[in-house]
Amino acid sequence: MAEEGSKWVVMVTGRSPTNIAVIKYWGKRDEGLILPINDSISLTLDPLHLSATTTVAVSPSFSRDRMWLNGKEIPLSGERYQKCLREIRKRANEVSDEKQGIKIKKEDWERLHVHISSYNNFPTAAGLASSAAGFACLVYTLAKLMNVKEDLGQISSIARQGSGSACRSLYGGFVKWAMGNNADGSDSLAIQLADETHWTDLVVIIAVVSSKQKETSSTSGMRETVQTSALIKHRAETVVPVRVSKMEEAIQNRDFASFAKLACADSNQFHAVCLDTSPPIFYMNDTSHRIINLVEKWNHSEETPQVAYTFDAGPNAVLISPNRKTAALLLQRLLFHFPPNQDTDLSSFVVGDKSILQDAGVTSMKDIETLEPPTECKDKVPYQRFTGDVSYFICTRVGSGPKVLTDETLALLDPITGLPK
Amino acid sequence: MAEEGSKWVVMVTGRSPTNIAVIKYWGKRDEGLILPINDSISLTLDPLHLSATTTVAVSPSFSRDRMWLNGKEIPLSGERYQKCLREIRKRANEVSDEKQGIKIKKEDWERLHVHISSYNNFPTAAGLASSAAGFACLVYTLAKLMNVKEDLGQISSIARQGSGSACRSLYGGFVKWAMGNNADGSDSLAIQLADETHWTDLVVIIAVVSSKQKETSSTSGMRETVQTSALIKHRAETVVPVRVSKMEEAIQNRDFASFAKLACADSNQFHAVCLDTSPPIFYMNDTSHRIINLVEKWNHSEETPQVAYTFDAGPNAVLISPNRKTAALLLQRLLFHFPPNQDTDLSSFVVGDKSILQDAGVTSMKDIETLEPPTECKDKVPYQRFTGDVSYFICTRVGSGPKVLTDETLALLDPITGLPK
Repeated sequence: MAEEGSKWVVMVTGRSPTNIAVIKYWGKRDEGLILPINDSISLTLDPLHLSATTTVAVSPSFSRDRMWLNGKEIPLSGERYQKCLREIRKRANEVSDEKQGIKIKKEDWERLHVHISSYNNFPTAAGLASSAAGFACLVYTLAKLMNVKEDLGQISSIARQGSGSACRSLYGGFVKWAMGNNADGSDSLAIQLADETHWTDLVVIIAVVSSKQKETSSTSGMRETVQTSALIKHRAETVVPVRVSKMEEAIQNRDFASFAKLACADSNQFHAVCLDTSPPIFYMNDTSHRIINLVEKWNHSEETPQVAYTFDAGPNAVLISPNRKTAALLLQRLLFHFPPNQDTDLSSFVVGDKSILQDAGVTSMKDIETLEPPTECKDKVPYQRFTGDVSYFICTRVGSGPKVLTDETLALLDPITGLPK
Repeated sequence: MAEEGSKWVVMVTGRSPTNIAVIKYWGKRDEGLILPINDSISLTLDPLHLSATTTVAVSPSFSRDRMWLNGKEIPLSGERYQKCLREIRKRANEVSDEKQGIKIKKEDWERLHVHISSYNNFPTAAGLASSAAGFACLVYTLAKLMNVKEDLGQISSIARQGSGSACRSLYGGFVKWAMGNNADGSDSLAIQLADETHWTDLVVIIAVVSSKQKETSSTSGMRETVQTSALIKHRAETVVPVRVSKMEEAIQNRDFASFAKLACADSNQFHAVCLDTSPPIFYMNDTSHRIINLVEKWNHSEETPQVAYTFDAGPNAVLISPNRKTAALLLQRLLFHFPPNQDTDLSSFVVGDKSILQDAGVTSMKDIETLEPPTECKDKVPYQRFTGDVSYFICTRVGSGPKVLTDETLALLDPITGLPK
């Protein structure tokens, strides 16, 4: 190792995607190790639109571990952060930085401190799974910095201890979190079912729903469900195992009808067990219900599923279409029913892959105003438009897993001081 | 029988209460006979505030069976009406009207026609169980007219074939609908657990929630739940039997804490299995959720349940307090969070037993405006007031079963013509 007191900083920047479960994780069998009561399956979302970027740096000049989240320093003392740091440090290996002429020996890692800076390219307040992307990125990037040799599955098992669903963000494409059997959690980890090139036609549209409601955190929510719901055990032990194997098959066969049926049913059942909790937990609101009704009505009128929906621990809808054509028809329907408030720009109302807007024939706010009611509504008065009930839409797709960013300008820490830029 | 062609009319007027289930009925094992998949338990509500009144008349001058509901003629051809008429006619006996000097022989009933007029003393549009009170009243009053000798349990089994929950309206107080075992439904009937004098302290406040949403009928809703929910079987076979026996015990012991815990949990589980249906069924809306949150927060802050809530197939809340003092505190909270629109009269905003208003210290609209936030909200900003989200409140209590009204001025049919007055 380069001599103590010298000013060198070695750092790595990584980017990790978020993911959306289509077979839901809800309930732990071990709170400390974050071991779930059932398997779950997720889609990794394109990091271009929804991801965490994290820079981790090490230097002999750092006097303690520190972390900044979205530019603000936060304490690292929490058990979840400590576990991730400890587990990665344990597996650290020798690192050589040839450009700087630095060699960090395996045993040095125990006394060297790190600086961590992380930010999300989407609003954390939006209730999208920011902790999944964040912990996946932290663990992945630390593992790169410390030259950890364990495979991604083992790394995912460490990320799991930061935030359960984070383990699924270690892979791109379609991912299963196997609940595992071991009491130490060593086999509770992510397995890639198929990578992001397997089923490229899928289009994901997220409706970020306006809400002033304070939400129950998923940690306390799932604890209360496990303790009080009379249905959760039956769900976890009897219903989910069948759904997991059917969902694996649907993904393998790119069978959208089965995929949609399973995803919708499992989202609804997750919210059903939340409602069966004492006191009951409501994550969906009237706008969420209206989005479901819109999709169900459309799917019913077409006789085959056009769209799958799934909702996590909040009111936002994640809508999955089998192809761009259907996604454009979906976006028309969403914009018809949930137009923006008057002072909104189209460019901030539909974000992400905006090319879907062109497919939908919407290039200006005026185009939204003049949208025709969907055919499945035409006969049935009254249809209603709920202005402002959706804050904005994010158009995205299934994407790749974590990556190291080699472009040094993307680093979040200064390469000289090791402090946030 | 008096000679054919004569103008005599014999009639009976009855009044039947509505009821609110605290252990819910949801799902049939036989659609034709209306046989449920589990027992249910209800409170009969005071007919003074919520009831159906029905006059049934017979005359040799009537050429066919006819019915008027709330003043409007409706077809009697529906299978449910036909079954009730058929089953009661089968059990008809000789009737003497000494005042008019008329004797109707047992065998005459098969060819005599009836006129039926029924009205509800509460808005049918409000989503309160009008069909329960209506069918109970129809069957009860027909049975009186035709001098049916079967006991109330047997009568309830006929009312069940009109509308399942109607069978529970044949008794006052606390009633169990035993699902029964027989394939012909003969043992699927109502049993009185305790009459209305058993637990007189209970106060019931119904919040009629504003809603423009078209609701799924309970008939089709419960069919879809039975066909598609992965949780309903577990609920009906494993969860409900335990709850029914605990609820019987809680009622027997006037144990409000247990009563409230069971009622809330079962209401929530009923809505959970609706959500677990494909497509999902939403009966509660954001206002319903807010009422639940208000009650849960208050119950939590007092450490022992102050109020039980239960919701049927709609957004209205039925709130049950252990005594008038708590009911007054509840009404204060409800009026604080859900004040009326500006142009509303207090007398139409709180109806039924208005004396609770005095106990709550509210005698004018101004008193509602100046209500203090409940203590359990004070520290926690922001509390919100949702003006106009509740249309009105009905204050009532547990009440008596069906009765014949001897006051002839209350009859809904003209004693000469047999047509609606």
